[in-house]
Amino acid sequence: MNIHAKRIKDLQHMLKEHRLDGLLMGRTLEIGFLTGFYLDGCAMLVSRSGAWVFMPRMFIEHFRSKVSFAEGVAADAGVEAAALAKAKELKLKKAAFEPESETYVRGRAWRKAGILEHDGLTAALRAVKEGEEIETLRKSCRIAAKAFGIVKPRIKTGRTELSVYRELEDTMQAMGAKGPSFNLIVGFGPNSAMPHHETSERRLKNNEAVLLDYGCVYGNYCSDITRTYFHGRPTEEFRKVYSIVEKAQKAGVAKVRAGVSSRAVDAVCRGIISDAGYGQYFTHGTGHGVGLEIHEFPRLSPRVDVPLRAGMAVTVEPGIYLHGKFGVRIEDSVLVTRTGCEVLTKTAR
Amino acid sequence: MNIHAKRIKDLQHMLKEHRLDGLLMGRTLEIGFLTGFYLDGCAMLVSRSGAWVFMPRMFIEHFRSKVSFAEGVAADAGVEAAALAKAKELKLKKAAFEPESETYVRGRAWRKAGILEHDGLTAALRAVKEGEEIETLRKSCRIAAKAFGIVKPRIKTGRTELSVYRELEDTMQAMGAKGPSFNLIVGFGPNSAMPHHETSERRLKNNEAVLLDYGCVYGNYCSDITRTYFHGRPTEEFRKVYSIVEKAQKAGVAKVRAGVSSRAVDAVCRGIISDAGYGQYFTHGTGHGVGLEIHEFPRLSPRVDVPLRAGMAVTVEPGIYLHGKFGVRIEDSVLVTRTGCEVLTKTAR
Repeated sequence: MNIHAKRIKDLQHMLKEHRLDGLLMGRTLEIGFLTGFYLDGCAMLVSRSGAWVFMPRMFIEHFRSKVSFAEGVAADAGVEAAALAKAKELKLKKAAFEPESETYVRGRAWRKAGILEHDGLTAALRAVKEGEEIETLRKSCRIAAKAFGIVKPRIKTGRTELSVYRELEDTMQAMGAKGPSFNLIVGFGPNSAMPHHETSERRLKNNEAVLLDYGCVYGNYCSDITRTYFHGRPTEEFRKVYSIVEKAQKAGVAKVRAGVSSRAVDAVCRGIISDAGYGQYFTHGTGHGVGLEIHEFPRLSPRVDVPLRAGMAVTVEPGIYLHGKFGVRIEDSVLVTRTGCEVLTKTAR
Repeated sequence: MNIHAKRIKDLQHMLKEHRLDGLLMGRTLEIGFLTGFYLDGCAMLVSRSGAWVFMPRMFIEHFRSKVSFAEGVAADAGVEAAALAKAKELKLKKAAFEPESETYVRGRAWRKAGILEHDGLTAALRAVKEGEEIETLRKSCRIAAKAFGIVKPRIKTGRTELSVYRELEDTMQAMGAKGPSFNLIVGFGPNSAMPHHETSERRLKNNEAVLLDYGCVYGNYCSDITRTYFHGRPTEEFRKVYSIVEKAQKAGVAKVRAGVSSRAVDAVCRGIISDAGYGQYFTHGTGHGVGLEIHEFPRLSPRVDVPLRAGMAVTVEPGIYLHGKFGVRIEDSVLVTRTGCEVLTKTAR
């Protein structure tokens, strides 16, 4: 069975489990995940036994040439209204939409029409990778990891952060990537201490930290990796902080396994950093799901208790940020397995 | 005055005009437009006399180093709730949010707290370009236009659509662009007849149409341009259709002027194409605003009656699509002036 047809079947099973008759969707990401058809401006209805995609007339030929397992419907008077009308025609009593995925205007219209709110169905489907998408994600991560080995030796004193940004991007594109998976972060010196630094024209000086947080999109799948190193002769403080983060990250990766809670992975990393006296400088969660989006379900944080499942892809990325001095973050994307995990972004560090 | 400080002042004037006490915002685009600070995960409140941005603690140093005219507030328990609490503390009676810009979850929370819905304030501010952003948009468009002259001679028989996509992207990046401004469309032969064709591995044959719809992001500003030509010896039908679209597009551009309705520009293009007997094959609107987003206010369509204002940037892009054969679309981004418009994407055709 076609992977997209299978996903729609899986969603139909979930509808039954959650005692729903249908799910209305308006975001390109979910519709693309279920059909392989990623054009903005469509809406979709999946009932327990059927699937319809509503779209501007000009998309119809294209849709029908690609998708056979869902019905394409031209909806000139608005795709949201057409999806609603279909749900009505089918007399669906308990149709839902996913609040987390919708715009306010769309959700408001559906809510007014009596559609229920029910989160997490497509997010749960998307979280567990299977079949071809695993290989695509592996390749996306491999491209990112390889780029580190190619670009790092070229990062010399005097280069700007933005020039390194562009070289990372070009290097990944030359290996087949579509583009960067987010606004890549290249931070030199004190800029490395800002977890969300905006890559700038700052030039690299001798003897300072270099932080690269980057990734690519390959076949719609996002990769995410961070490497930090010292350009020149590392200070005592850098060595110390680096070794704490490295220890925390390795322990986090070692903790990942099907059945383990997302919170437990965070706790391992946070514990090591706190025990070393740097707890207050680890200012973000330990990781997040990665796939069609760079940040997706589940989060690895103290507040999120989700059991990891085989096939989930998550990042493990503890960090310590010393304002005005430097920051260290080490991040890998990993694939959860029954016995542990596969590190997808392996580099020679 | 700093351009961002001025925009906040302009918004405060609009609040007064619309008898509102404040505006709550949660989308990065609007917050970035008003502050120059474009990090995801913030919320903003602008009252008639103040401006606050609520953010995760880890952004605060970065924010304060960039923004002096709005107050940065660390909001560890959620930025939306923090913005609400501030509005309450200030006793704002008529605070609003913009339904078109918000996610369902955020809008729902604000609506429940009694915040009003009021659309179009920031969209109207963003539509009229001024100062530095005009020069940035010009440059973005100039890069896109130049790329056509460079890439076109290299589009030979046998090349794939995707390889041309990448060359357009690389060429624009070499001129300073950050990246493409949307999923660029490269369509060969019958693929040119799909207005939203997904660029593929199809190879160019002798004697068929080539359609390039592309643009770049330069300094956050999007450009948008489409060129169509015949690779080889044009058929009689292609020549005929091309000359109709060209006539329609030139007439549309000639119609653009401050004070003219968006609908009137659409009517001019649509009239010429309909009079030539191809009305049913022009399946989309004539254009759209362009700026921080590739599609923004106002739309140029039969259904939208907005007077153009000097400083607005819009596209003019009529097309005729003959399914299974070929399509022709010609598009320029133009800047509205008091006496007409400045074509920003001029190429030697």
